[in-house]
Amino acid sequence: MTYCLGIMTREGLVLGSDSRTNAGHDDATVCRKMHRFETPGERSFVLLCSGSLSLSQSVLTLLDRDYQRGTGLAAAGTMYDAARVIGEQIRHVSAVDREALERDGHRYNVHVILGGQVRGGAHGLYLVYPQGNPLSAGEDAPYLQIGESKYGRPILDRGVRYDDTTLEEAAKYALISFDSTMRSNVTVGPPIDLAVYVAGEYRVSRHRRFGAHDPDLTAVRVQWEQTLRKGVQEMPAVRFDGVSG
Amino acid sequence: MTYCLGIMTREGLVLGSDSRTNAGHDDATVCRKMHRFETPGERSFVLLCSGSLSLSQSVLTLLDRDYQRGTGLAAAGTMYDAARVIGEQIRHVSAVDREALERDGHRYNVHVILGGQVRGGAHGLYLVYPQGNPLSAGEDAPYLQIGESKYGRPILDRGVRYDDTTLEEAAKYALISFDSTMRSNVTVGPPIDLAVYVAGEYRVSRHRRFGAHDPDLTAVRVQWEQTLRKGVQEMPAVRFDGVSG
Repeated sequence: MTYCLGIMTREGLVLGSDSRTNAGHDDATVCRKMHRFETPGERSFVLLCSGSLSLSQSVLTLLDRDYQRGTGLAAAGTMYDAARVIGEQIRHVSAVDREALERDGHRYNVHVILGGQVRGGAHGLYLVYPQGNPLSAGEDAPYLQIGESKYGRPILDRGVRYDDTTLEEAAKYALISFDSTMRSNVTVGPPIDLAVYVAGEYRVSRHRRFGAHDPDLTAVRVQWEQTLRKGVQEMPAVRFDGVSG
Repeated sequence: MTYCLGIMTREGLVLGSDSRTNAGHDDATVCRKMHRFETPGERSFVLLCSGSLSLSQSVLTLLDRDYQRGTGLAAAGTMYDAARVIGEQIRHVSAVDREALERDGHRYNVHVILGGQVRGGAHGLYLVYPQGNPLSAGEDAPYLQIGESKYGRPILDRGVRYDDTTLEEAAKYALISFDSTMRSNVTVGPPIDLAVYVAGEYRVSRHRRFGAHDPDLTAVRVQWEQTLRKGVQEMPAVRFDGVSG
């Protein structure tokens, strides 16, 4: 399983990914799911991938080949165009691999979250589906998730607001969301890659990889649990209708 | 969709259920999913049901018929026996209905959470699967969920402990878990039935039904969101490796 998350606020983007990959529960390993395509000062893209590792690797390899040539993501004029470039590569790999996969009962499964900015346009956040079509985050829906999305969602629904949430806060919400997910699903696991993109910078200026025993990640877990337990204690008791028979 | 939750602590049980039922998104209605079988002073059972309403109704109708006759749940000597009685009725309805359902592409789907106590034994909490086999909660796994379980789980993992959590706290955790679920999945909806069973009482002494606009439920939602947001603000900022390129 995978959990990847992108948060978009007025100030910029926070992007996070786990690193657990498994082909069956007896074949778990570590793989970076966050990838960057960047021409500092001009364009910065962060891609997060879920689904079959073989498929997302093909998509990334082809995107990178084009980037080196100055085409594809290197030539995309807007974030929407960039999402479409990714969608076209997903469709290309589908044309190459889907039939053989489905013949043996595998689904064609690759999802990509794209965050970034191209000079001249606003920063943006997209989810590109296995069919190649892109979905944009927005002010009403300021985050996008792929993979094991449910455990880490309530905290985002309650806290993240496009207009009000600072990037510093968004990074904390992201870490809590990852911690909640890892706690409930062992197939989502560290290291956790966390990147912050500040709108208008055209480069990712803050990044960190949190290992399994990273003391800061442990501190988040411990402190957040204490916050929740204290919060519950301070809530007024639930009132009941009394004895019922 | 459905969300039902049972929490077991040393002091007793908290049981909760939503009331949204739908046969397709254009056919949503309200149905109680919490049912009680009780002989005060001797035995008390609370059942929570998910899955096909037609199937859970059949199971409950047959359980009730037997209860009135003094057999089935009325004669079960332990909570384990009671879970087995429910499993047998689930298997009976399977024998009657499964083939016709599967012929038209429907799954045989009925899950039951059972909480309660029979005089002479400890209070207990079970989940009975569509195949009729029972799973017990325990000190290491003090809660059981059926239906849309993921959104409401992180708060339980972080807060509920068999030994330490009071029933008063467990009721608050349950309401928060329901609120988290309803917020993220509109097919889980009020009224929310919440019941508290105190070990050794052999009757449910506290119950409440929270409607959609219940001011106490609204207060939980508002206050909990404030708790979370304040908690995030008070967390130290995430430290990054600084500029990376």
